[in-house]
Amino acid sequence: MKKLINTPETVVTEALEGVAAAHPSLSVDIENKVITRANGPREGKVGLVSGGGSGHEPLHGGFVGYGMLDAACPGEVFTSPVPDQMLAATKAVNGGAGVLHIVKNYTGDVLNFQMAAELAEDEGIEVVPVVIDDDVAVQDSLYTAGRRGTGATVFVEKIAGALAEEGADLAAVAAVAREVNSRSRSFGVALSPCVVPAAGKPTFELGEAEVELGIGIHGEPGRTRAALSGARELAAVALDAISADMSVDGDLLVMVNGMGGTPLIELYLMFNEVRKYLEARGARITRNLVGNYITSLEMQGFSVTVCQLTDTLTRLWDAPVDTPALRWGR
Amino acid sequence: MKKLINTPETVVTEALEGVAAAHPSLSVDIENKVITRANGPREGKVGLVSGGGSGHEPLHGGFVGYGMLDAACPGEVFTSPVPDQMLAATKAVNGGAGVLHIVKNYTGDVLNFQMAAELAEDEGIEVVPVVIDDDVAVQDSLYTAGRRGTGATVFVEKIAGALAEEGADLAAVAAVAREVNSRSRSFGVALSPCVVPAAGKPTFELGEAEVELGIGIHGEPGRTRAALSGARELAAVALDAISADMSVDGDLLVMVNGMGGTPLIELYLMFNEVRKYLEARGARITRNLVGNYITSLEMQGFSVTVCQLTDTLTRLWDAPVDTPALRWGR
Repeated sequence: MKKLINTPETVVTEALEGVAAAHPSLSVDIENKVITRANGPREGKVGLVSGGGSGHEPLHGGFVGYGMLDAACPGEVFTSPVPDQMLAATKAVNGGAGVLHIVKNYTGDVLNFQMAAELAEDEGIEVVPVVIDDDVAVQDSLYTAGRRGTGATVFVEKIAGALAEEGADLAAVAAVAREVNSRSRSFGVALSPCVVPAAGKPTFELGEAEVELGIGIHGEPGRTRAALSGARELAAVALDAISADMSVDGDLLVMVNGMGGTPLIELYLMFNEVRKYLEARGARITRNLVGNYITSLEMQGFSVTVCQLTDTLTRLWDAPVDTPALRWGR
Repeated sequence: MKKLINTPETVVTEALEGVAAAHPSLSVDIENKVITRANGPREGKVGLVSGGGSGHEPLHGGFVGYGMLDAACPGEVFTSPVPDQMLAATKAVNGGAGVLHIVKNYTGDVLNFQMAAELAEDEGIEVVPVVIDDDVAVQDSLYTAGRRGTGATVFVEKIAGALAEEGADLAAVAAVAREVNSRSRSFGVALSPCVVPAAGKPTFELGEAEVELGIGIHGEPGRTRAALSGARELAAVALDAISADMSVDGDLLVMVNGMGGTPLIELYLMFNEVRKYLEARGARITRNLVGNYITSLEMQGFSVTVCQLTDTLTRLWDAPVDTPALRWGR
């Protein structure tokens, strides 16, 4: 295992110390593993909390800030945070207007967020959960009943965060989060496995000329193995799967996301293939992200997420955002 | 070779097509491989041009935009751009106040930029070159006489870009670029080699438990091989080398940069070690970057760059910037 770490047990805590030191705009409770905005909750604003296992950085801590999340609670690597963490985050961001929980659809995360929501309700905080399940690759998986939540999480956090910043109420913020999820689909491809520090060995084995199609973000199996082909064919595999499930016409927000170990030059090349595929079918990419946004440690590979935009969703996407990993217009 | 590409010959061109499609703020001349700001040169503003081999993304194309570069000319992977490209970029950004060439110290880049400067002077454009040579690892290298230019390039492009945006003249912009270079030092460590697409095989071989200390950004040899140790020890190796060459007290701008294949969670952990080392010696990191800024394809590893700040340099660092890869304050 070749990693820039000290001990497997302290990876998350030490990385959080680094996040705290690097970003004065964030307040990091290292003991409880909760990242919030340094300037605390805003009275009357709906609070947005997300969280999940670590190893997907910048998700979620890198998206805490103006126009996006109010708090993130990272678990150990590829392990759900615990309800107490989620409760602490919920209380920390409560400005009296209720709190939205943005939950990726993995069994542990869903159960723990549900428990945290009940505990928060007991303390008089209204909580609405939204479960993200955009990955079309598999119906159930090693860690999921139903579809997995992947790239759409970034879109939901940005767009719901923008609406909350405008002062919308909890029902409206939850509604737009659900709308973004329902209008988004993802598909991922792995060229290599990754190594969870505590395990010390690859999550799976792939041959020298093999790829895993429909990979999740934890190295869990995808749809199938295939021979490594060109970028054009891999883009088609991903977009065929997405468009089999949702029509991809009109104005689209598209993310070509790196899994952590793939260089940016390949992601731009991949984005070009995705664009050509979609344009040939009459669709138009009007907004995009190209880079590492929801990763799987050092895994090589990419995922594509497509969201069918509306005028309102475009406006909210364009709204100012100021977080460590996503920042514009302010 | 496992890469998201179509053919080795078309990697750079196709990636540039992706850059063009993803960033409407840029104008990309794909045939001549020149990236400029979409809104053309500004009359009376000093133009900033940089360039070098591809494979280091986001450097340099990702730094074209308000407050930073006016143009970038990418060569083939790990190969210098040609003088004609540099000349085209220089002419494209000439607003009548002269053009600064920011050149990383590699023999091919230096010679070609020199030739381009002469050609531009023949056409009546004043050009001043600044050569970046911040890497303390080796005195000469496979591709360099003297020190290699690495991470300080990002600092020079940001700070000189800010001064040019304020309307300073060419001599002043060149002076601040040289000042940043002279106040900056870098050191890199590789955990893995990388594969140049046209070569199809790793740039070097590293054992399962080995690291290369003092690596450059092209997989060229560093100072020495060593057994893989913990993040704390690797931070000390890098900072011992840097502080043997420049005193690292006072207010510092520090970048912990990923080489392309190292996940963000490890870079934050590494930043924490760098911070602890420097604080123990009475220095203070007042500004920082943590992420992939000057990469070496899919290489795993990191580099640290330290710049001794002054009040003026801090002010210019903080000035608004709006590029694909660096954006704040606007």
